[in-house]
Amino acid sequence: MILHYLYILGITVEAITGALKAGTKKMDLFGVIIIACATAIGGGNIRDILLGNYPISWVGHPEYIVITTCAALITILAAPCLKYFHRVFLILDALGLVTFTIIGVRMTLALGHGFIVASIMGVITGVSGGVIRDVLCRDIPLVFQKEVYAGVSIVSAWLFLLLHARGLSDTCAILITLGTGFSLRLVAIYCKLEIPKFNYTQIQ
Amino acid sequence: MILHYLYILGITVEAITGALKAGTKKMDLFGVIIIACATAIGGGNIRDILLGNYPISWVGHPEYIVITTCAALITILAAPCLKYFHRVFLILDALGLVTFTIIGVRMTLALGHGFIVASIMGVITGVSGGVIRDVLCRDIPLVFQKEVYAGVSIVSAWLFLLLHARGLSDTCAILITLGTGFSLRLVAIYCKLEIPKFNYTQIQ
Amino acid sequence: MILHYLYILGITVEAITGALKAGTKKMDLFGVIIIACATAIGGGNIRDILLGNYPISWVGHPEYIVITTCAALITILAAPCLKYFHRVFLILDALGLVTFTIIGVRMTLALGHGFIVASIMGVITGVSGGVIRDVLCRDIPLVFQKEVYAGVSIVSAWLFLLLHARGLSDTCAILITLGTGFSLRLVAIYCKLEIPKFNYTQIQ
Repeated sequence: MILHYLYILGITVEAITGALKAGTKKMDLFGVIIIACATAIGGGNIRDILLGNYPISWVGHPEYIVITTCAALITILAAPCLKYFHRVFLILDALGLVTFTIIGVRMTLALGHGFIVASIMGVITGVSGGVIRDVLCRDIPLVFQKEVYAGVSIVSAWLFLLLHARGLSDTCAILITLGTGFSLRLVAIYCKLEIPKFNYTQIQ
Repeated sequence: MILHYLYILGITVEAITGALKAGTKKMDLFGVIIIACATAIGGGNIRDILLGNYPISWVGHPEYIVITTCAALITILAAPCLKYFHRVFLILDALGLVTFTIIGVRMTLALGHGFIVASIMGVITGVSGGVIRDVLCRDIPLVFQKEVYAGVSIVSAWLFLLLHARGLSDTCAILITLGTGFSLRLVAIYCKLEIPKFNYTQIQ
Repeated sequence: MILHYLYILGITVEAITGALKAGTKKMDLFGVIIIACATAIGGGNIRDILLGNYPISWVGHPEYIVITTCAALITILAAPCLKYFHRVFLILDALGLVTFTIIGVRMTLALGHGFIVASIMGVITGVSGGVIRDVLCRDIPLVFQKEVYAGVSIVSAWLFLLLHARGLSDTCAILITLGTGFSLRLVAIYCKLEIPKFNYTQIQ
C-alpha cells in the first residue's frame, strides 16, 4: 500500500524536523529523542485518543518508535550536513503533511463517522505533531502562522472527502489528493504565499 | 433545557475570545479557527478523555464545531467593532465559565463518580479551554494568575454538589449555582478582587 | 507494598515542586493547586490515556488528589522554610522519578504489552508530570535539558525489564532498579554530570 510507505517516510521526516528543532534549543540526547518521537507520532496519538480508537498506533506497532528514535540519532550525527538539505526537508515535510491528513480522514471514515469529524481528524493528524513540537520547545506553533500549512491540510481533507463521495476508487482519490495538496504546499513555499493574517490589538 | 442554550452561548463566547487572542499573535485564518475551536471545545474534550467517556462531545455533535468555526470567522470580520464590547465579553465569559462547570459536574455524577471527581471534572471543563488557548499562544495561562477565575469554577462546582446533596431539584440547583457563580465573578472583575498570590523566589 | 508508599511519597514531592514552580510565576492559590496536582498526577494520566486504561488512577482513587492538594497548601504556608531544604527535595524527587518509572513499566507489562511499549510508558510516567508543569509555566521542559533526568528514567526502565526477563522476583527487581536509578541520579546531580547536548543552528 502506497500510503503505508509514505507514512513511514512521513514519520521519519517529522522525526528529523523535531530533532533539529530540539537542537536549536540545546536539548540533551534524550530530550532530542523524545521531541522527535512526539513530533512524528503525536498527531496520530491525539486523533486516536479523541476517537477512543485503542490501541493507539505505536502501542500496536512499536517499530514506529524504533524508526523515529533511529531517525533522531542519525539526525544528531548528520546535523552538519543536513543544513544543505533544508529544501529537501521542506518538500518531504509537505508530502508527510498530506499523507498524514489522508490517513486521518480514511481512518475516521472507517470508524463510521461523518465528513465533518473526518475532515477535522485529518487536519489534527496532519498538523498536531508540529504543534506539540513547538509547544514543548516553547514557540508559538508555526503551523498557525506561516504560509499555507494548516490550510493545505484542510483543503486536502475536503478534497479527499469530495472525491470519496463522488465514488472514485480509493487509490484514485488518494493520488489526486496527494498531488493537489503537495503542489499547493510547494507553491505556497516558493511563492511565499500567505493567508491573510488576523492582526488584533486589544484596547487595555 | 436552559443548560443547553447556555452551553451554545458559552462555546460561542469562548470561540470569540480564542479568535481575538489568536489575532493578538498575528495568526492566519486557519490558525485563528483552530485556536477558537480548541478554546471553546477543548475543556470538554479533556474531561471526556479523562473519564473515558466516548464518543466525546463534538464527535457526536459536529454542529458544535460548525458553530465555533462560524464564530471565529465572524470575529475576524467584526474585530474592529468588538473592541467596544470588551465588557460584554467579560460578562458572557463569566456565564460560560459557570455553565461549563455545572455541565462537567453533572455529567461526571451521571457516570457514577463521587463528589471529589465530579468537582475536579467541573473545574477542568470550566477552565481548561482557556488554558489550552494560552498554551498554544505561548502565554502563562491567565486563569492561574488573574482575578478569581479558577476560584469561581471551584466554588460553583462545590456549591452545585452541596445543593444536589441537599436534595434540591436539578433546575433549582442549576439556577442558584449560576446566579452565585456569575455574581462572584462579576464582583471579582469590577472590584479587581484577587486571590493572594504565592510569590516564591528560588535560592540558586 | 513498598511501591505504594514510595508512590505516595513521590506524588507529594512532585506536588511540592509544582507548587514552588507556580510560586516563581506568581500564580494565585488555585493556580498553585492546579499546577501541583498536574505535576504530581499528570504523568500517570498521560500513560493511562495512551493505554486506554480506564478508570485513570485518580478517578479510581480521589484520595491522591486530596494528598497533592494538601501538599500544595502546606507548601504555600511553609515556603520560607522550604528554601533551606532544596537538596532534600532533589533527593526525594530522584526517588519519585525512579518509582514512577517502575510503576509505569509494571502496569504496562500487566496489560500484556511488550518491552518497547513498557519502557516508553515507564519514561512517560516518570518525566511527563514535570513536562506538564513546565509547559503550563511557559518554560522549556527542564527534563529535556538538564542533567541526566530523562536518561535516568530510560536506564531504570530498561534495567527493570532486563531483571524481569532474567526471571528475578518482582521485589528483587524493584529494589535493584530503585537503588541503581537513584544512585545514578544523585551522581548526576552532585557531579553536575550532563549528557552531551545537541546544539544546532539553522541557516536561514
